[in-house]
Amino acid sequence: MENIITSKENPVIRLYQKLSSSKKERFQYGLFVLEGLRIVKDAVSENAEITHLLITEQAYRKFRTDFFQADLRNTKIIVISNELGNRISSTDKTQGIFAICSVPAEKGIKFRENGRYLVLHGLQDPGNAGMIIRTADALGIDGIIMSGSCELYSPKVVRATMGSVFRMNIVIENDIDSVFKILESNNVMTSAAVIDADAENIMKCEFSGSQAVFIGNEGNGLPHDVSARCSRRVTIPMKGSINSLNAAMAAGILMWEMGRDNGR
Amino acid sequence: MENIITSKENPVIRLYQKLSSSKKERFQYGLFVLEGLRIVKDAVSENAEITHLLITEQAYRKFRTDFFQADLRNTKIIVISNELGNRISSTDKTQGIFAICSVPAEKGIKFRENGRYLVLHGLQDPGNAGMIIRTADALGIDGIIMSGSCELYSPKVVRATMGSVFRMNIVIENDIDSVFKILESNNVMTSAAVIDADAENIMKCEFSGSQAVFIGNEGNGLPHDVSARCSRRVTIPMKGSINSLNAAMAAGILMWEMGRDNGR
Repeated sequence: MENIITSKENPVIRLYQKLSSSKKERFQYGLFVLEGLRIVKDAVSENAEITHLLITEQAYRKFRTDFFQADLRNTKIIVISNELGNRISSTDKTQGIFAICSVPAEKGIKFRENGRYLVLHGLQDPGNAGMIIRTADALGIDGIIMSGSCELYSPKVVRATMGSVFRMNIVIENDIDSVFKILESNNVMTSAAVIDADAENIMKCEFSGSQAVFIGNEGNGLPHDVSARCSRRVTIPMKGSINSLNAAMAAGILMWEMGRDNGR
Repeated sequence: MENIITSKENPVIRLYQKLSSSKKERFQYGLFVLEGLRIVKDAVSENAEITHLLITEQAYRKFRTDFFQADLRNTKIIVISNELGNRISSTDKTQGIFAICSVPAEKGIKFRENGRYLVLHGLQDPGNAGMIIRTADALGIDGIIMSGSCELYSPKVVRATMGSVFRMNIVIENDIDSVFKILESNNVMTSAAVIDADAENIMKCEFSGSQAVFIGNEGNGLPHDVSARCSRRVTIPMKGSINSLNAAMAAGILMWEMGRDNGR
């Protein structure tokens, strides 16, 4: 085993902690962090640029065979004490595997006939954003535009995507005019997801051709000027006394329904 | 304003903390806790039996008008210091409203023609359980049977239901034989949700008559002997390289699809 890092003043440990806690530092360095065996392996298999792999002594013994086939030529592998692992972990029971990763260049979205897209506008909860990205990956959505939403590479979003952050085509475009321009120039029909019995029931409206659904903020939904610019307003019919689904769940049902008319 | 409780040794404060942290104590006392304005108001409007309402000085000034119309004759209202509010809160930024509530008697499930039911078998994550209950309420599911799953009245589950825990018909039945007996004697068709391309695609199978879908554990799915006892095995078709949806999202899509054949 290599030298074991035990000092919390070690520069890589300090970098990891800065990146873990600060959006500003992530932005300045163009780096973000990963924790856990599954997501680190996902990053490796999706050819993410991992600059550092930090692994506790215990995890090294347990998991090193998991990385025998991995191409880690450009990755610095650092063994750290179990104590340091507990210190930098953001979970109660850490697996002891951490990575620092370069924010990937945006792959962009390839627009195509019968494409299925999602626009997240003002979505703030990292758990929701992560779950939506994971679901989009599972349901074969072609691309996601994030506009005025939470930070894609925050540890909470990355964790909740369960690795889909590396697989999905995601574009950040905070200027809503540009979002509409991109969609219009690619002949994508736009639907604003709203909670309003007067909007079109998603069971009755057709999702043919290229389609994008806009999902708004958890508490306030889409701003009026955004929903008004969409081709139509759509809604998930609800029963009972509750007046709203969780935003991620609503997005999931909308993605499912969009895919229905698409030969899934 | 009434006398303000400032001591952490106050018996009601100590009771709240015990109930908040211990499943055993919740079971022994038959009580559970709520935190936050919305869920406490939901409990009031659903006629839950609130034994104690704890409210910080600050919250008292801000929210007392919210309870002017509430029937709180059987509720002891206790004003506590803001410091105590922060102490007993399980959130970073508390609203300062807490309640102790009796575990309600099970309302039972009324089985009916074309009913829609869910069985949660071995589901362990409180956030998932809460989100499923919330979604079931929104989508008009007629009843949920929880079998070998996480505790319904844990603070995390209750919070994630956003008040739906008071509205949904939920039965706890840990004996899986009894679960099947209940469903069979009410002519409910049973579908096991599995991840298996050989199972029936939920877009192609019909959900007519009375229907129950079984959702399994997050990591392991349904045990083989349970899925084998169901009338059929159903699956959500997936694209892409991810091999599973989050359990709550899968349950949401299944509930949505069950409702489709039911004139929503």
